[in-house]
Amino acid sequence: MSQLSCLFEAKSLAVVGASNNPSKYGNIVLSNILEGGYKGVVYPVNPKEALVLGLKSYPSLSDIPDDVELAVIIVKNHMVPDVMEEAGKKGVKSAIIISGGFSEAGEKALQEKVVEIIKKYKIRMVGPNCQGVNYTPNKMCATWPLIKQEGKMAIISQSGSVGAELGKQAENEGIGVSAIVSLGNKADVNELDLLEYFDQDKNTGAIALYLEAVSNGKAFLNMAARLKKPVVILKPGKTEAGQKAANTHTNSITGKREVFEGVCRQYGLINTDNLGEFYDCAKLLSMTKKLRGKKIQLVSSSGGGAVLACDAIVEENMELAMISEDRCRKLKAKYPQHFTVGNPFDLTGDANPALYKEIMLELSKEEGIDVFMPIVGDPIRGVAEAFLEVRELIDQEIVVCFFGGAEVQVEETMKMHKQGLPVFPSPYRAVKAIAQTFQKKSSIN
Amino acid sequence: MSQLSCLFEAKSLAVVGASNNPSKYGNIVLSNILEGGYKGVVYPVNPKEALVLGLKSYPSLSDIPDDVELAVIIVKNHMVPDVMEEAGKKGVKSAIIISGGFSEAGEKALQEKVVEIIKKYKIRMVGPNCQGVNYTPNKMCATWPLIKQEGKMAIISQSGSVGAELGKQAENEGIGVSAIVSLGNKADVNELDLLEYFDQDKNTGAIALYLEAVSNGKAFLNMAARLKKPVVILKPGKTEAGQKAANTHTNSITGKREVFEGVCRQYGLINTDNLGEFYDCAKLLSMTKKLRGKKIQLVSSSGGGAVLACDAIVEENMELAMISEDRCRKLKAKYPQHFTVGNPFDLTGDANPALYKEIMLELSKEEGIDVFMPIVGDPIRGVAEAFLEVRELIDQEIVVCFFGGAEVQVEETMKMHKQGLPVFPSPYRAVKAIAQTFQKKSSIN
Repeated sequence: MSQLSCLFEAKSLAVVGASNNPSKYGNIVLSNILEGGYKGVVYPVNPKEALVLGLKSYPSLSDIPDDVELAVIIVKNHMVPDVMEEAGKKGVKSAIIISGGFSEAGEKALQEKVVEIIKKYKIRMVGPNCQGVNYTPNKMCATWPLIKQEGKMAIISQSGSVGAELGKQAENEGIGVSAIVSLGNKADVNELDLLEYFDQDKNTGAIALYLEAVSNGKAFLNMAARLKKPVVILKPGKTEAGQKAANTHTNSITGKREVFEGVCRQYGLINTDNLGEFYDCAKLLSMTKKLRGKKIQLVSSSGGGAVLACDAIVEENMELAMISEDRCRKLKAKYPQHFTVGNPFDLTGDANPALYKEIMLELSKEEGIDVFMPIVGDPIRGVAEAFLEVRELIDQEIVVCFFGGAEVQVEETMKMHKQGLPVFPSPYRAVKAIAQTFQKKSSIN
Repeated sequence: MSQLSCLFEAKSLAVVGASNNPSKYGNIVLSNILEGGYKGVVYPVNPKEALVLGLKSYPSLSDIPDDVELAVIIVKNHMVPDVMEEAGKKGVKSAIIISGGFSEAGEKALQEKVVEIIKKYKIRMVGPNCQGVNYTPNKMCATWPLIKQEGKMAIISQSGSVGAELGKQAENEGIGVSAIVSLGNKADVNELDLLEYFDQDKNTGAIALYLEAVSNGKAFLNMAARLKKPVVILKPGKTEAGQKAANTHTNSITGKREVFEGVCRQYGLINTDNLGEFYDCAKLLSMTKKLRGKKIQLVSSSGGGAVLACDAIVEENMELAMISEDRCRKLKAKYPQHFTVGNPFDLTGDANPALYKEIMLELSKEEGIDVFMPIVGDPIRGVAEAFLEVRELIDQEIVVCFFGGAEVQVEETMKMHKQGLPVFPSPYRAVKAIAQTFQKKSSIN
């Protein structure tokens, strides 16, 4: 862990290749670091400018009068070795090389030269050919897009686009991330270093890993055995065409799929099949405790939502909880005839926050319920408060499904997400995420 | 068709049960009709108010001095027969009964009474127990949520929540809808009437149908055989639990699943498995011509996106197009070495709108490409214009995949959707929608 804290916890950083041209990544990255509210000190480096984005610009790293812990490098590929040599002499401890044009483009010698330099100076490096690093607890968005909201999800991605997409979704939904790391060519820091770091990072609850090629199969297996936090994986290349494309993309061998999948199964790493599942599972695990069982109780305002959820529960090998006959009788006597008492429990268009709360509290006394899934299929204001109150009073986990609620849905979902209560926008996605993550490792025990 | 035009094309409507209390549906519906910019004349009916939402309120339908074509009814269930009797005498031609408390709540006699009245007066009625009707070409949003944007997708739903969700997604994405009809108890107007209407409606390109129970199996089969426009269906109840929940929800028998699925297969109706697929297929069909074949060419800024798309193409039984060796040689000579020439065609981080356009135009000369799927995995401004220009110049269909582009992605996606070019937010969803709709009926031939 300590080895990479010089990267994530850096108290000062220089952006080498900082630019005033808004179409350049040297501008976008510096701008995101500043707008993100980075906790440390920032030094733009650009010999052609006096000021970059309003900050004094230094001609080179060595011209900076103070210590620099981290160098973020966005210059032409052939300039990188010189910059890194200078960084070493300056005492820089970590680097993020965003510049491309290394082994992925056939320039292996150039990459090896860089690796030699970082070894000489004991610099830890992410990249080259990566999309940067975001660590929200340090407000350090040395990447794009700008993502500021802190959350419990750490994203490690061998595709810049995939990392950016997951992070942005998490922010848009009010969930946030602890980190996004774009792996790039993995010439130094690789998925193993990062899995180890985030497994111990107190700001991280679950890890999402998009990986095209495993750096070291045996080491990955050993790491998988040691990990304590839940890890959700998307590893494309399931088909021959996909594998071929992955080999071309990363210029590496992706390895035997069956072996990888066997390791995941054995150690409880969650393998997903597409971007949607990948996000949903990482989201659920960054917000929930380990589910104690697979019996789900539905309480719905929408008949259609309840029907769709029943199908999903059966098809995904979860179970509909059974309510005792005694309680059914009691509830049937209490509520209007057009309510459906049972599972699904259908409140119909009469549903309101107080009713959801009342019924969930009553049902929570049942032994046979592991998870409550309230389904809100209408624009019902105030359900967030109701579900958050219920969560404090019951032992069962709550996973909310909200759809058909337009603007009210967006507002209520944000409120729940900010309090760590997961909300999914369709019955299928809610059930699928529960089923995929059920009985795996869990962050908050 | 003419029979239901009295509903969709109504030039005047009364909201019986209009209310000044913002928590009542009688307020929400009237407010949406007014905010939606309804083309006709609106009459609130409420005996206790002089004004509702600033409009003169009438004590009853018969007090309205002018003709009323459509009555939207949101009053207590036991008042509905009297209101309908009055509507009949007034010469009202169509009704939307939002009020619940009929056969779904065990009040069969009450529903039968209403049906007798509408038969006597030849009124066409949607509901009871429904969430209303939206027909955007008439700017008539007699439902919730408020959805104004015109599009080519007509939504028929036996769940108010499902209809609302689909419509809102379509508006949020800049696609819009032609209609949303909540079927409710289907005491008069049912899915057959509506399929027939929208199949002929010039404002509709594709129909999305959420159905828990088929009203008349034989009639449905005959209708399926006659339909010319593409129909996408979500029919839950695949499992016993789902079927049981559906029977309870609609208080009707859902029918044999195998028979229904057979009919769909035979007549090219597209059966989907969950809300996400349902929306994606309806969206694609409301925007595209029939695909001429299943050979897809990928042009990507994201290596990861390209890999994910390859897997999806193979797994969904689509095909990666093959580029001729001649053209490959030519393109390899023209572009930098780090571009991957082939399929996927990887433009790497160098991707820009002009490059996408240039390469798609060059590749469009190939015989073996049916569909272009440009994948944008970065915040690249201007791709919308580029793809829209290319569309005018080539014969192949374009289905865009855009992810990892944050705010730029939202802006560019809206631009493309408003021009009828479909964009999906993940490779899997784009490919899956193509695969599910491939070789089915098509709206724009």
